[in-house]
Amino acid sequence: MESPQNIIRNQPFSTSSPTVGIIGGGQLARMLCISAAQLGVRTLTLERQEHCPAAAVSTGHQVGDWNDTATLMQFAQQCDVVTLENNFVDAGTLETLEQRAFNILPHSGCLKTIQDKVVQKTALQKLNLPTPRFQAIDSFAELEIVAQEIGYPCLLKQRHNGYDGKGIADISRPAELETAWHQLSGDTKPLYCEAYCDFLKELAVIICRSASGAVVRYPVVETIQKDHICSIVKAPADIPTQVRDEAIRIAARSVAALGAVGCVAVEMFLTRDHQVLVNELALRVHNSGHYTIEACFTSQFENHIRAVLNWPLGNPDLVKPAAVMFNLLGDAVGTSFPSGVEQALKIDGVRLHLYAKDASKVGRKMGHLTVLGDTMPSALNRAKQAAQALTFKNP
Amino acid sequence: MESPQNIIRNQPFSTSSPTVGIIGGGQLARMLCISAAQLGVRTLTLERQEHCPAAAVSTGHQVGDWNDTATLMQFAQQCDVVTLENNFVDAGTLETLEQRAFNILPHSGCLKTIQDKVVQKTALQKLNLPTPRFQAIDSFAELEIVAQEIGYPCLLKQRHNGYDGKGIADISRPAELETAWHQLSGDTKPLYCEAYCDFLKELAVIICRSASGAVVRYPVVETIQKDHICSIVKAPADIPTQVRDEAIRIAARSVAALGAVGCVAVEMFLTRDHQVLVNELALRVHNSGHYTIEACFTSQFENHIRAVLNWPLGNPDLVKPAAVMFNLLGDAVGTSFPSGVEQALKIDGVRLHLYAKDASKVGRKMGHLTVLGDTMPSALNRAKQAAQALTFKNP
Repeated sequence: MESPQNIIRNQPFSTSSPTVGIIGGGQLARMLCISAAQLGVRTLTLERQEHCPAAAVSTGHQVGDWNDTATLMQFAQQCDVVTLENNFVDAGTLETLEQRAFNILPHSGCLKTIQDKVVQKTALQKLNLPTPRFQAIDSFAELEIVAQEIGYPCLLKQRHNGYDGKGIADISRPAELETAWHQLSGDTKPLYCEAYCDFLKELAVIICRSASGAVVRYPVVETIQKDHICSIVKAPADIPTQVRDEAIRIAARSVAALGAVGCVAVEMFLTRDHQVLVNELALRVHNSGHYTIEACFTSQFENHIRAVLNWPLGNPDLVKPAAVMFNLLGDAVGTSFPSGVEQALKIDGVRLHLYAKDASKVGRKMGHLTVLGDTMPSALNRAKQAAQALTFKNP
Repeated sequence: MESPQNIIRNQPFSTSSPTVGIIGGGQLARMLCISAAQLGVRTLTLERQEHCPAAAVSTGHQVGDWNDTATLMQFAQQCDVVTLENNFVDAGTLETLEQRAFNILPHSGCLKTIQDKVVQKTALQKLNLPTPRFQAIDSFAELEIVAQEIGYPCLLKQRHNGYDGKGIADISRPAELETAWHQLSGDTKPLYCEAYCDFLKELAVIICRSASGAVVRYPVVETIQKDHICSIVKAPADIPTQVRDEAIRIAARSVAALGAVGCVAVEMFLTRDHQVLVNELALRVHNSGHYTIEACFTSQFENHIRAVLNWPLGNPDLVKPAAVMFNLLGDAVGTSFPSGVEQALKIDGVRLHLYAKDASKVGRKMGHLTVLGDTMPSALNRAKQAAQALTFKNP
């Protein structure tokens, strides 16, 4: 992986409030905007829709296509620094802006490494960081051979733009290969095949690195996915010390090599024989770090803002021994405001976050809730009760 | 004091996100809007200026005069409930809206009691709650007599609209009476004279009451004022248990009698002979409760929003043994963004809040910072260092 230089725009940061541009307008941008507002930092968001979760809380919102160079340039001209809420932005467009001395963090070079999962995993392998076995696939014929080598069950995945189970097919036997190939548009989209990891737990670590190279690391957490979508996060993860240390070592090594600025989420598997494997990296604030809003002295969102402004980073430690986050997913097409709010808020210590999306859909991330506790069972029990009370259905 | 009925507007709360209207657009409204946004609650703010601290984070902002009935009615029609960020709104105008079945919380009746400091203190006296000696003044001749009776030093105060030392004159001897009378416009504005309280400490308690009557109480804190403006808040106050219990009793009794909905701040004096006297009440979120954003399981801002929506209230307990809040005041006419941010954020655990006002002025509240600690000296020391690093001057 390359260690990019941070190109700084000619304009120095003004002595008045800086403006952070955020490409994307979803819930991650929304929470970045809220943290920025608390710090007195202006935000400008860029999204294709006028109405989106972030637009309601950003200082300014621009409607436009972030992959259009002219649009992005006009956007960046109004910002002291531009950052990303997703990793789907065209790295080439960002590179064009960097060449004109705009300040884009994380850097397009890092993004390019991350965007293609095969390039990402190959870079990790070169660092001797363990990953599940994987191989790029160029044709259906190759898939048949590689799947046989890797063994069943295995996964077929798109190399680009996958998230929350989108762009992934589980394959349990050879007869399923053809359906998976077509489902993931194998004839037009680059795919790779990956060994299924029969994990004990999934772990995640968020590391935040500032433009000047300062680094803070959040606790190792356990993430529990349902249908490939993050469902529950437990902080800290209940794992032996040596596993925790290995997860920290792997996450720190990955992020240091990447040289990214801002938050990087490192998702890992803990195998049944207590090995830690890297699953994937995301160059942004991450669902596995939403708990940090209440549970840490400084949240991932505030530290991301501080990082891209090259301000000193804040303490990422937990304020209480345990924290649990539950995602709130849509149950049907319907209202973006759940029923059961009063019931959920009756439960001690429930901190509710709703993203004010235009409507709910099955499986869509509509909000989350966090509960802190002196013990994990206490926090988990209350969070679970509250999450069960909340449903997004037709009114 | 009266116990008003909460008149509910004909429209039931919709199953989609409710809208809270906030009269006022300053930093208190700004922090209410941020808490509401986290809960997925829409906010609509009303202020005379287009650019104000709250407008940047509220879902909608209306420019207008909140004492104009037509403006206020048009505003209230867009909201499920209307609340206040200050106590200067004309209670009669609010009453007109209540008569038309708009949901205004706190109720105009409570506001009327609070707005005139003599009516407020008389109501407290009727509840046998101790206050410093005071008397309404109708003429300069009466002032001379009353000041003599009360004794020097004493204070001359306006009965309405005072805050942060505005509308207050310190009088140390008879020769200063005339200047004070003219300074406070005694010929046109109703005044009162109050005994100077030679206090050991100033204390404050925030109590939040929901529309259905549920109540939560925040810890007793010590507030340190400089030139009548809140400068430092220490939570919890370092006071003997019996003093703490007496402060809680007095605060709870005052708020219960008032029957207000939302946060009520009760400011008190602890005298040198360990008596607790009520100084004054505010029907709103309060500077003495800014520390609750990081220091409590649920902030005063979130609980105020929950209270006016008649949602269950959240846990007001401290998450750490100690918290310290420093106000950041303008040092001169100049930028609203301070110098020294990087220096301040280097200090462990500093949580900076800036209000994004249009400009700083001497003594203007530009922001605040909070530090949590396992001990008070540790939190205090770090907060002090950070506050000293931050200055608002000409760029």
